[in-house]
Amino acid sequence: MTIKSIKVNLKKNSYPIILDNAYNSSLPFFTKFVPEKKVFVISDDTVAKLYLKSFENFMKENKFNLFSFVFSSGEKYKNLKTLEEIYNFALSAGIDRQYTVIALGGGVVGDTAGFFAATYMRGLNFIQFPTTLLAMVDSSIGGKTGVNIKTGKNIAGAFYQPEFVFINTSFLKTLPGNHIKNGMAEVIKYAISFDEHFFNYLSNVLNKAVLSDENFYYIISKCCRYKAMVVAKDEKEKLGIREFLNFGHTFAHALETITGYKKYLHGQAVAAGMLFIADLAFNIKFIDDKTKQKIYKVIDSAGFIKPKLNFSINNFFSLMKKDKKNISKKIKFVLPKKIGKVVSKQEVDDRIVLKTLKEFFK
Amino acid sequence: MTIKSIKVNLKKNSYPIILDNAYNSSLPFFTKFVPEKKVFVISDDTVAKLYLKSFENFMKENKFNLFSFVFSSGEKYKNLKTLEEIYNFALSAGIDRQYTVIALGGGVVGDTAGFFAATYMRGLNFIQFPTTLLAMVDSSIGGKTGVNIKTGKNIAGAFYQPEFVFINTSFLKTLPGNHIKNGMAEVIKYAISFDEHFFNYLSNVLNKAVLSDENFYYIISKCCRYKAMVVAKDEKEKLGIREFLNFGHTFAHALETITGYKKYLHGQAVAAGMLFIADLAFNIKFIDDKTKQKIYKVIDSAGFIKPKLNFSINNFFSLMKKDKKNISKKIKFVLPKKIGKVVSKQEVDDRIVLKTLKEFFK
Repeated sequence: MTIKSIKVNLKKNSYPIILDNAYNSSLPFFTKFVPEKKVFVISDDTVAKLYLKSFENFMKENKFNLFSFVFSSGEKYKNLKTLEEIYNFALSAGIDRQYTVIALGGGVVGDTAGFFAATYMRGLNFIQFPTTLLAMVDSSIGGKTGVNIKTGKNIAGAFYQPEFVFINTSFLKTLPGNHIKNGMAEVIKYAISFDEHFFNYLSNVLNKAVLSDENFYYIISKCCRYKAMVVAKDEKEKLGIREFLNFGHTFAHALETITGYKKYLHGQAVAAGMLFIADLAFNIKFIDDKTKQKIYKVIDSAGFIKPKLNFSINNFFSLMKKDKKNISKKIKFVLPKKIGKVVSKQEVDDRIVLKTLKEFFK
Repeated sequence: MTIKSIKVNLKKNSYPIILDNAYNSSLPFFTKFVPEKKVFVISDDTVAKLYLKSFENFMKENKFNLFSFVFSSGEKYKNLKTLEEIYNFALSAGIDRQYTVIALGGGVVGDTAGFFAATYMRGLNFIQFPTTLLAMVDSSIGGKTGVNIKTGKNIAGAFYQPEFVFINTSFLKTLPGNHIKNGMAEVIKYAISFDEHFFNYLSNVLNKAVLSDENFYYIISKCCRYKAMVVAKDEKEKLGIREFLNFGHTFAHALETITGYKKYLHGQAVAAGMLFIADLAFNIKFIDDKTKQKIYKVIDSAGFIKPKLNFSINNFFSLMKKDKKNISKKIKFVLPKKIGKVVSKQEVDDRIVLKTLKEFFK
């Protein structure tokens, strides 16, 4: 494997995503982007146990001034309370605008640390070191940062781009199977949305018991390219292009909210969302039964099953309507026209959505 | 008086400051910047009692869709808890990205509402309607938004520019005397920093018992021009130009923090900070005794007196060192060379700072 660099082209502050399997390859980027040699590492206790020591040693060997903050892992700690703890810690540690924040962890760490970086003293530089497949292929790229409030996901947030993203694929060696699966939902999303060839590749490799390093390397670089492409075209989600990435997500956010972020990992919710969208697209004749079955099959081969209904469908439906991408309370869906091509901003009659929801949860 | 417009020239998103004495003159700007006609007004209970009803009526007469949120007035409510209440209210009210946030109030309202606008669903458009002299001449212009945390002022924040600032000078008619004084400290700051002629003007008019509408109009437009000029040159406080606005502020922030934001209004703290800086500049021979006396005299004629010492000078000094504009714990002062000209980034020997502090509080 060779070190790979993918560029996220933005009007201002373009930045590279670097793929490799060792910390050392990140050094030239630290030299370039962190000349002050001052870093503030934010992580959670799951990741910290595995990697914080080795990462701190790597930084110290290279003469970096370093502080670390570790919070309890889990989506429920991605909130304003954790953020306040980090603000207080940082101020008492003497962290000033010369420090660069490093998010060492999965999506929760990246979102929280990114929002901290966006807002502490009105903005510090920021680097993503994603440790999960989900963060590597999705959340670490594109500058979406934020925390949840009681009544909704990612409601407090900012668009804030990192200086660079370093994907150390060796982290995947210790990632539990359900977290690999968690990331695989987003991987499948890119394939359905943008790339039939990639979809066929996934349909093959996901039948294997274990994916090789080469498989992961190929999959991650494919996804990063698509994510970078979409973000470059629509950094702040204003042109309707970034919405393509929300395939399955309106449903997923509602499912996560109604189950209190406890029952399902994000990927499981997204997988369910994609199954639902396949049903919906079939019901309104966007796709035929064969395409729908293909989508079901690849999601099944990644090990996902349909969620059970233990809530009111009406409540669920009204949560879908509250999603922040909706303008004026109409739900806009991203729907597949075929494998490798989705269309966005599709308003579907409320009655058909409700009928599909009822069938889905039957 | 005629409607006056001052432009804040930024690389992206330049915006106007409009001065007049009636809501109606803001209509053309609403038509231009809020075509969706959806607004979310944020205010505090002091301002709301005086103006919210009339402002809501003005908006409703002009067929705006409107929600309002009112929080308890006072610097101590400029915190993450208030912010969380606004997030929750907004989400439950169904406020989406089509809404424009209006800050109707003083600095606390503007900072809090601005930070809400910067971060709710990763950013809504935003308008400033400052109601105090302090907010009119300073905090409503320039895009600094944020809230306090337990251990420091404005630690959680963002640079986020409004679509426009509307200064309705009729609000000053109900502003209590101590709040006029509160704003006058920043007015004096602009004069000492940038404009000897303006300083002489102030030295004259501040001896009058009551300022006329014309005096206020002139004073506000002068200050807005200087603030706009500085912000245009250094929007994100990265070039060291915006630091000029911090004349007296390192001392002021420490004084506000050590007294729990309870004892002094911001202007009183800034006035004290400018007196201290006059002493410091005199002690290191930046200014002569005559200049120092002039500064003391104008601040005195605005009704300010020196604060009393009821805390440890060493604690106070270490708070000054924590100010977020300091790089690597050295205090950088903005110091006057003469009336109308200040220089920034002046590092002063810790011993001289401490000695001056001790004399100041004697």
